[in-house]
Amino acid sequence: MNNKNNKDNNLSNKSSLIKVALLGFGTIGSGVYTLLENQSKLISERLYSATGRNISLEIAKVLVLPDEYPEQLPQEIRVTDYDQILNDDSIEIVVELMGGLEPATKFMNQAMERGKHVVTANKYAIFTAQGALEEKADLTDVHLRYEAAVAGAIPILRSITEGLIGDEVEEVVGILNGSTNYILTEVKKGKSLEQALEEARQNGYLEADPSADLEGYDAMHKLGILGYLITGNYPAEREIERAGITGISPQDIEQAKQNGQAIKLVARATKTETGKFTYSVRPEALAEDHPLFHTEGVLNTIQIKCKYAQELAFTGYGAGSLETATAVTGDIVSIARDLHIC
Amino acid sequence: MNNKNNKDNNLSNKSSLIKVALLGFGTIGSGVYTLLENQSKLISERLYSATGRNISLEIAKVLVLPDEYPEQLPQEIRVTDYDQILNDDSIEIVVELMGGLEPATKFMNQAMERGKHVVTANKYAIFTAQGALEEKADLTDVHLRYEAAVAGAIPILRSITEGLIGDEVEEVVGILNGSTNYILTEVKKGKSLEQALEEARQNGYLEADPSADLEGYDAMHKLGILGYLITGNYPAEREIERAGITGISPQDIEQAKQNGQAIKLVARATKTETGKFTYSVRPEALAEDHPLFHTEGVLNTIQIKCKYAQELAFTGYGAGSLETATAVTGDIVSIARDLHIC
Repeated sequence: MNNKNNKDNNLSNKSSLIKVALLGFGTIGSGVYTLLENQSKLISERLYSATGRNISLEIAKVLVLPDEYPEQLPQEIRVTDYDQILNDDSIEIVVELMGGLEPATKFMNQAMERGKHVVTANKYAIFTAQGALEEKADLTDVHLRYEAAVAGAIPILRSITEGLIGDEVEEVVGILNGSTNYILTEVKKGKSLEQALEEARQNGYLEADPSADLEGYDAMHKLGILGYLITGNYPAEREIERAGITGISPQDIEQAKQNGQAIKLVARATKTETGKFTYSVRPEALAEDHPLFHTEGVLNTIQIKCKYAQELAFTGYGAGSLETATAVTGDIVSIARDLHIC
Repeated sequence: MNNKNNKDNNLSNKSSLIKVALLGFGTIGSGVYTLLENQSKLISERLYSATGRNISLEIAKVLVLPDEYPEQLPQEIRVTDYDQILNDDSIEIVVELMGGLEPATKFMNQAMERGKHVVTANKYAIFTAQGALEEKADLTDVHLRYEAAVAGAIPILRSITEGLIGDEVEEVVGILNGSTNYILTEVKKGKSLEQALEEARQNGYLEADPSADLEGYDAMHKLGILGYLITGNYPAEREIERAGITGISPQDIEQAKQNGQAIKLVARATKTETGKFTYSVRPEALAEDHPLFHTEGVLNTIQIKCKYAQELAFTGYGAGSLETATAVTGDIVSIARDLHIC
């Protein structure tokens, strides 16, 4: 909120031009590219106000597959060989937006081993590594940030790790998967499950293989990451009870509607008497006065119950190119800020 | 989210014990005292994980009036003369929780002039200074943070200045005053305005002089601060249209109820075609599908419309001792983190 006009004591060697490499140019990657291009002036102004320094961000390279995006990217930044990024010491931040376990995980580890900071939206890779990526960041003394991995545009990780740093989260209840929430919303409106599924696919809300969404794996990965931030440890996959929406019948949804309820795919992390947390992702029928009842379509809502702050709720777009790109950009800029704040 | 095991290049002179002074021991001050005492171990653990350093926070002094709290505070930290804090170079952070314009504003300026970082929850002083306090923080090269000044426990300032740093906020619509929202909620339930007012006073939701709440001044101060974070400039008081809830009749509320609406005291900052923002605090009748419709009692809700992230909404307790104390504590800890992150 205020400039920090620090002396250049240990910073004379730091360039105020920070070069960034994007891995992947799909939905989120192209969004981050657009955002950093369109907002570069504003971002530099805000970084100046936060650090008292002139800092600019530049997308130096974008990694794509040989046959991908021959036209959309300037030839001088389009690369198809990751070594061209790894071996470029001028690149300080690598932004992994390919998704999937591999080569994403390997690429993130390699970047950190080269002393590059990493930003990612890859909830699958972060959860599956079960803390190994954060550990690698510690050992290599770099920043690893993944705000966009959970609930898209909602700054939920930042709110837990910074805003509530003096508090204790005792329960998290969330709608963390936009595509299944869209499907349940449309079926509640009267569409058939097949129809809603097809629409979700046409709108790009579903993967080619939709099971990650429909079977609750995507929500499970996000819940696991929230569990890590709250407890300091990742729950193992076997510790998270998981059921998707494929077992729900239109009758179930109609019945709930009759009772004034709505069926949502709810992710829960709950502290028990013993202090241990239990985790579940499963369809729940919610009453109208529940904070998640009114969350429709691709929106996400996360309710947090704390020891001191009591209840907080956050709603926003959990998916989408530019929506998710804002969270990725927030991480990139916050790293630039931390590199220059003192 | 990961350790930063930085070398001790320019930090060998920095103590890992950070001494804090509280100005005031009222509702919020006693809450911050409790939170820092109860959570000190957890906070140190989290600061270690964020910085790789052993950092502990200590409340070294609490400024009170001569006749205040003779019992509740240990004699060695209870002081009645501000100079004992100003002249103590070991105190790095001053937390202003007295409220009111003066001497709060003078005390914050004096602390910054002595190179002490400042945290406050004082929306009245921050707004009235119209940027002079942020400017003083720049000139004296200290941190000034006031997350708790707007919407209590909701990490809204952090979300705008950090999470959405790459985005552009185009509208803010909020219920920013819990006491008037409590009153409107109780009247909607059927109580008389006088009855609801009396209950609000008994529950400690209203100041001795309730006009700051009832006439919309408190919400106006908070809206002005949000305007500054969004635009970089504070709107002058004359630029903010303001009407409180005292002009609302039970009939208005009943009429709205008949129409399926709820009357709320709504604070708005809206970007116009010209790019300039217009500001208003006034009662509005909201339809049931409005994000603020379901915000009842002392809760606050802030809806943010952005260029890229689209719509976000945050709900939480806008008042209360420990609720607000979490936001103050978050600011104190984030300063400790920034002092040691590199």
